Amino acid sequence: MPKTTVLMSSEETLIARVRRALPSSAAGALRVGIGDDAAVFRPARGWEWVISTDALIEDVHFFTRTHRADAIGYKALARATSDLAAMGAEPRFFLLSMALPPDRAGRWLDACLRGMARAARRFGMTLAGGDTARSQCIALNLTVLGQVAPGRAVLRSGARPGDRIFVSGKLGTGQLGLEIVLRGLSDRARWRKLLRPHLYPDPPVALGRWLANQKLASAMMDLSDGLSTDLTRLCKASGVGARICATRLPMVEVPEPLARRGIEPLQLALHGGEDYQLLFAVPARLAGRIPAARDGASITRIGEIVRGSGIELRTDDGKSVRVAPRGWDHFARRG
Amino acid sequence: MPKTTVLMSSEETLIARVRRALPSSAAGALRVGIGDDAAVFRPARGWEWVISTDALIEDVHFFTRTHRADAIGYKALARATSDLAAMGAEPRFFLLSMALPPDRAGRWLDACLRGMARAARRFGMTLAGGDTARSQCIALNLTVLGQVAPGRAVLRSGARPGDRIFVSGKLGTGQLGLEIVLRGLSDRARWRKLLRPHLYPDPPVALGRWLANQKLASAMMDLSDGLSTDLTRLCKASGVGARICATRLPMVEVPEPLARRGIEPLQLALHGGEDYQLLFAVPARLAGRIPAARDGASITRIGEIVRGSGIELRTDDGKSVRVAPRGWDHFARRG
Repeated sequence: MPKTTVLMSSEETLIARVRRALPSSAAGALRVGIGDDAAVFRPARGWEWVISTDALIEDVHFFTRTHRADAIGYKALARATSDLAAMGAEPRFFLLSMALPPDRAGRWLDACLRGMARAARRFGMTLAGGDTARSQCIALNLTVLGQVAPGRAVLRSGARPGDRIFVSGKLGTGQLGLEIVLRGLSDRARWRKLLRPHLYPDPPVALGRWLANQKLASAMMDLSDGLSTDLTRLCKASGVGARICATRLPMVEVPEPLARRGIEPLQLALHGGEDYQLLFAVPARLAGRIPAARDGASITRIGEIVRGSGIELRTDDGKSVRVAPRGWDHFARRG
Repeated sequence: MPKTTVLMSSEETLIARVRRALPSSAAGALRVGIGDDAAVFRPARGWEWVISTDALIEDVHFFTRTHRADAIGYKALARATSDLAAMGAEPRFFLLSMALPPDRAGRWLDACLRGMARAARRFGMTLAGGDTARSQCIALNLTVLGQVAPGRAVLRSGARPGDRIFVSGKLGTGQLGLEIVLRGLSDRARWRKLLRPHLYPDPPVALGRWLANQKLASAMMDLSDGLSTDLTRLCKASGVGARICATRLPMVEVPEPLARRGIEPLQLALHGGEDYQLLFAVPARLAGRIPAARDGASITRIGEIVRGSGIELRTDDGKSVRVAPRGWDHFARRG
């Protein structure tokens, strides 16, 4: 009987393209990678596994007319990886579930995968599996896996009164980029650099691992929905309150022409989403060991954990105001 | 300072609802469950971990006007779990990434979660984490985790010439249910039972684990896109061909009124998707150990693995025909 060539279906062509574009070799802890019904891992002894899942959806998290495909691919993986950084874990593997309109399965996808591959190399991650489906809008769901030494994962719930509160990086940079996009200014060369944190967020993975391994942070999370919302969450999980100082906040600089359009640094710093920086608490006796910068990330002390609940902000003129969580909430009623 | 009540945002209300609805207690291998940035697992020694991710999307995999919310929730988890069954793994945990239009975040979601909770209890799974986002259509992405003894996961690639080919259950039952839905007949009481495999698929998890633990299957996968497509994939992964017998196929029975509407059992059995049954190969010397049924799943020998490639079908009248993969493909050109 003559050999018959089995034609590859389009779905298989797609999967082959994904495998070529992304680092996906089964090695080490990954015994069976993409191409079977599921991935098989042989966890190295003496490690815990940290797993998170995160969706990036067209017309919610990005717009194809304003966001380049490679930035969308990069960001999908980077923001999921931010959750691993927030636990102090070392990123290792990811699974990609892609829902795409058929007209995005060609050149657009290739560019998207190039961006994702860049993030995978940056964070040292290997594709372990995935799923593809047709849909009316683009939806990328990333599941990320990392590892951490036993008991070293830093939770939201460990902050105690007296702990110092720190953030990495500058606050409001992600939101400033988004504001530029929303105002239709993203193609102007002069604002290009300000767009970068919105398009290519860079969660401080090495800093998170160091804080966890050195047992310096009593509580930690990533800043994805804005300081006011995320610090409120950390406080609630820990059963404490927080006092922060407006003059200490490492705020993004807003150029004068943008400030004139109503973009205020303090509002961005307090309520702007998608910074993908770290928010963490450190017991007072250990706070002296926190440097001003590490692994390329600046670190700023912004206040301290107090008894009670909620966030109190000391303003420039010495007054105290309560800060309500007003960051990003997908299901809050607006307007 | 008086205690201020921090109002829960809608997103947190949503997450609280999910936690209440689904089994989600952190215990055993799950050290940190839903509510932090990521889940933390302490893998039990001497096990491998099997992980898969799978999306269920409105207007692609289901329609809200024809599919009840509880069936959508049940199926989202059941079909992801089918990938664990296909490896011979024991289902343990899942992560739920939900994208919902705001008007689906109330009663619809509650019903959906009730269905998902039923699947979680059926398969013995605990919710370990998740993500929520607003979107224009409903998209449920499930990441499932299972465990298997080292080296016992059954891959697609192990089939050898001479191996016998088996399937569990009846073929075409999922597609028959879908055809009833597509023809607008799903509210007729007489067809209700036939809808069940489409609405509430029941992957034979126990059978998969038994085949893996007993080292009986040389290759295995789940039937999600139709026998012609899935057997072709198994053969390609193993570098072999297959010969199957039409008279042996355990075909779904199609009632006369539906047969008159052009629904043919053989076509459903060969090309119908979403059976979520197991397709597996067993070396000839072990084939006698495969019973006619186990753990509630019937088992049927349908043919054997041969040298070469592609699928040869022996028809009723003794002829041989080649079968092309014509099952479900999200990105195949149609029409």
